Amino acid sequence: MPKLEFWYDFASSYSYLAAMRIDALAEAAGVDIAYRPFLLGPIFKAQGLTTSPFVANPAKGNYMARDIARISALRGMAFHVPEPFPAHSLAAARIGMVAEEEGWISPFTRAVFATEFADRADIAAPETLTRIVSQLGHDPARVMARTGVDEVKSALRARTEAAASKGIFGAPTFITEDGELFWGDDRLEDALAWATGTCKRPA
Amino acid sequence: MPKLEFWYDFASSYSYLAAMRIDALAEAAGVDIAYRPFLLGPIFKAQGLTTSPFVANPAKGNYMARDIARISALRGMAFHVPEPFPAHSLAAARIGMVAEEEGWISPFTRAVFATEFADRADIAAPETLTRIVSQLGHDPARVMARTGVDEVKSALRARTEAAASKGIFGAPTFITEDGELFWGDDRLEDALAWATGTCKRPA
Repeated sequence: MPKLEFWYDFASSYSYLAAMRIDALAEAAGVDIAYRPFLLGPIFKAQGLTTSPFVANPAKGNYMARDIARISALRGMAFHVPEPFPAHSLAAARIGMVAEEEGWISPFTRAVFATEFADRADIAAPETLTRIVSQLGHDPARVMARTGVDEVKSALRARTEAAASKGIFGAPTFITEDGELFWGDDRLEDALAWATGTCKRPA
Repeated sequence: MPKLEFWYDFASSYSYLAAMRIDALAEAAGVDIAYRPFLLGPIFKAQGLTTSPFVANPAKGNYMARDIARISALRGMAFHVPEPFPAHSLAAARIGMVAEEEGWISPFTRAVFATEFADRADIAAPETLTRIVSQLGHDPARVMARTGVDEVKSALRARTEAAASKGIFGAPTFITEDGELFWGDDRLEDALAWATGTCKRPA
C-alpha cells in the first residue's frame, strides 16, 4: 500500500482541518498515513518570525479564521480560534512522539485537535492532556513520565530538524514516498492522488 | 447577475492560474467578474517584506514553483517562473487601469499573464507591452500616453490603498458583493458558489 506522510503541529489551525478527515480519505484511496508531529516554532524562527504568521500578519490571521469557519461549516465541523492562539504545543507534541511509537497517534491527534479547535480548551494544560490520554485508554502517569525522558525530547528535536531539511515551511504538509511535497489541507486530495499514481505528473 | 471582484497583481504567479480560467468558470456560474488590478508591493512592504514572500522565504518559493507546475500540468497549461521573479508589474498595472476603464481588461490580463508565465517574457519591457496592446487592436502610442497621466497613476495608488483597507494581504483575492474575501486560485470555486448563494454560510 502506498504511504503518505502527514506533517503537522498541534497548534496549526489548517492541520486541524486535515487531521479530522485524513484517515477516512486515505482509507478510501488505499493509502497508509504516517503521522509526523513536529514543531513549527523553529521553522518560523528560521523565517525571521517570532510567532505564527497569523499573528504577525493580522489581515492574514483574520482571513484564516473566516476561511476555516467557512470550510468547517461546509464539513459540518465546529471551529473556534483558541485562546491563546497559537496554543503552546510542545507538551502535546512530546506525547505525540510517544503515541506514534506505541501506535495510538491517529486517535490522539484527532482528540487533541478537537479539544483545541472545537471545544476551545488549552492543550498546554496538563489536566487537558491527562484527560485525553486517559480517555484513549492509556495510563497518563506512565505516558507523562515517558515524555520527560531525553530520548523523546531529542526525537522531537530531530523530527523538527527533519521537517526543515525536507523543505517544510508550514503545516499541514503531506510528503509522498517519492518526495513530493503538498502544503495545506486543500492539497490533501492531490497528495493522495499523487501517492496512488492517479495524478498527472508535470514534465 | 451577481458580481465578484478579482483582485490581482500582474507579477503574481497564483493570479496567473486564476486569470486563465476565471471568465469560463464565471460564465458557467452566471457571475459577472470585475477585474481589479493592484500592486502587491505596498501590501508586502506594510507586512515588513521588501520583496515577494516567495523570494524572502526560499523554501516557500521552491514549493510555489512545484505546486504551480503540478497544477498547470493538470490543466494543460504551460508554466515557467519568469526571470526576474517577481516581475516589475507597475507598467502593466497602469495599462490595466486604462484597459479596465475602456473595457478590454479581461483579454489584456490573460495576454500579460500568458506572456509572463507561459512565454517567459519580461512584462516590464516596453516592447512587450506595446506588442500586447497592439495585438488586442489598440493603439499603443495612445494607450502608453494615457498611462503617464496623473489621473491613471493616482487611480492605481488609490486601488492599492483600497486593497489594503479591504483586508487584502495577497493575490489573487476574490471579494463578493457582501464583502466576503477568498484568497488564492484554489478558492475561486468557493467564491463563485458564495456569490451565487449556493454555498453554506457559517453560523
